[in-house]
Amino acid sequence: MSLLVAINGWSPDEWIARFRREGGPLPIVDARAPFDPASIRYAAVWKPTPGLLAGLPNLAAIFNLGAGVDALLGDRTLPSAPVVRVVDPDLTGRMTEYVVLHCLDRLRRGDRHRAAQARREWLADYQPAAADVRVGVMGMGVLGRDASAVLARLGFRVAGWSRRGEVVPGVETFAGAEGLKPFLARTDILVILLPLTPDTRGILNRGLFAGLARDGALGGPILINAGRGGLQVEADILAALDDGTLDHAVLDVFETEPLPAASPFWTHPKVTITPHNAADSDPQHICRYTLEQIARAERGLPLENVVDRTTGY
Amino acid sequence: MSLLVAINGWSPDEWIARFRREGGPLPIVDARAPFDPASIRYAAVWKPTPGLLAGLPNLAAIFNLGAGVDALLGDRTLPSAPVVRVVDPDLTGRMTEYVVLHCLDRLRRGDRHRAAQARREWLADYQPAAADVRVGVMGMGVLGRDASAVLARLGFRVAGWSRRGEVVPGVETFAGAEGLKPFLARTDILVILLPLTPDTRGILNRGLFAGLARDGALGGPILINAGRGGLQVEADILAALDDGTLDHAVLDVFETEPLPAASPFWTHPKVTITPHNAADSDPQHICRYTLEQIARAERGLPLENVVDRTTGY
Repeated sequence: MSLLVAINGWSPDEWIARFRREGGPLPIVDARAPFDPASIRYAAVWKPTPGLLAGLPNLAAIFNLGAGVDALLGDRTLPSAPVVRVVDPDLTGRMTEYVVLHCLDRLRRGDRHRAAQARREWLADYQPAAADVRVGVMGMGVLGRDASAVLARLGFRVAGWSRRGEVVPGVETFAGAEGLKPFLARTDILVILLPLTPDTRGILNRGLFAGLARDGALGGPILINAGRGGLQVEADILAALDDGTLDHAVLDVFETEPLPAASPFWTHPKVTITPHNAADSDPQHICRYTLEQIARAERGLPLENVVDRTTGY
Repeated sequence: MSLLVAINGWSPDEWIARFRREGGPLPIVDARAPFDPASIRYAAVWKPTPGLLAGLPNLAAIFNLGAGVDALLGDRTLPSAPVVRVVDPDLTGRMTEYVVLHCLDRLRRGDRHRAAQARREWLADYQPAAADVRVGVMGMGVLGRDASAVLARLGFRVAGWSRRGEVVPGVETFAGAEGLKPFLARTDILVILLPLTPDTRGILNRGLFAGLARDGALGGPILINAGRGGLQVEADILAALDDGTLDHAVLDVFETEPLPAASPFWTHPKVTITPHNAADSDPQHICRYTLEQIARAERGLPLENVVDRTTGY
């Protein structure tokens, strides 16, 4: 029984070396070289070549090495072996860093201060406190729950929206289709940590932006998307920024990545761009997690964090 | 018995209106108009005119309306009535916002991302996580302890240094003169929340910067001063930035405020300037705190958060 490592879009070498170093007696197979399909029991993948996994007759589990299984589930030939999501404190912590950083930077008007500094201007005007600002987190999985908890600790008024209504202490809960409208209506900063599924594709559109609070302390609604580019309708974001429906957008993800040089987002004064690095997968942590899950399976224990194919996450 | 409100440097009107609105039967006296010195039992002050308080024969307590009592204690005619510091969750929360924002912005290289965006460049290079970075907080009063706790929650490796060695769960403790060298040697981001006293004036100098860690994940030591300008030797900060002893400085306070337009800090590429607004005093919260303390005193209870004149905080 071997572990196949099949990675596209990232450099596979570091991952393979690390799996070999830390995997003990487990044979590690590099998908870039010829191998015996029948020898593969586990696959650790990121955006594997479509069809690759379908050719493995003894595959017992598929480990997705990054956050988000949308690319993997998009492979129509994906076999029925369980797909395991990464749930890793390191990745969770990095996402919380990103969300907290950008909520605070909007709260404390970092761009305004940077512009004032460039003008040599001592601009000591009134600043709202976190308690004056309502953050709404869409997507209350492991990432959304952790970010919500830290935002609440910082004093923000935090609500979470999810399909099922996950509960976090100190965070207001909204659930399902009927909870969306009241959730948006009380939200000044909208943080997106949703998975990309058929239900959520294109959810960040004009109609949703129009439902956000317009009486907040920050001058207008703010969008922070650290989920997936496929969640957002980029033409709608641009139109909403230009007509004031949105005051600012912080975007880590895009319909096309890398973001094309011709995109109007790059130089838009109301847009903050990061290059899909809100929460990088650290090979050290993800390898360890994957090997732990394989060890569980080998001991006959159930796999953890298995993706529900009906919901897509 | 009346409350005198004596404010310089801020606009007194809002404060006086709020004390009158919330103070119930307590007579509020505006120091800008003539008044009977013998009628004053309490004074709520910010940078009061030197000598003013010395002329009040029945003064029972002095409430300092902002964080930091250095300006007040600098008045050599200050009478012996107890000086009460502001300890206010709102002010504490604002300072924690500031410290967390700037630690995260340095960790996630906000300036690098902003420059890349301006160049339309998708710069997805390696980023350390909070767990790779050692923050050292100098000054472990209410502000330092709260900021330390949130930084630790975010995964930073946090240590606190104070004269007495205050203990915060999850934060390494260093104390006194003998603790300073090892504290600096393990610190990548140095956060200053010290009071300004004769002991701390000019403490942020070349010798101290030279003791900071040089093997950190961020490329060089970072200084964040949200304490007082008098703590820092500005010529030493500039020299340290220029020769690489410091990699970056985030400065909210300065030897002279507002920072003069001619200061080289404004346009220094390694300096982030904010206009002494890391933690604004919110009149609503500070008035309420002051009136609560007065109510305690009137009921015969001891005042809280009285300044120790021997240590200066």
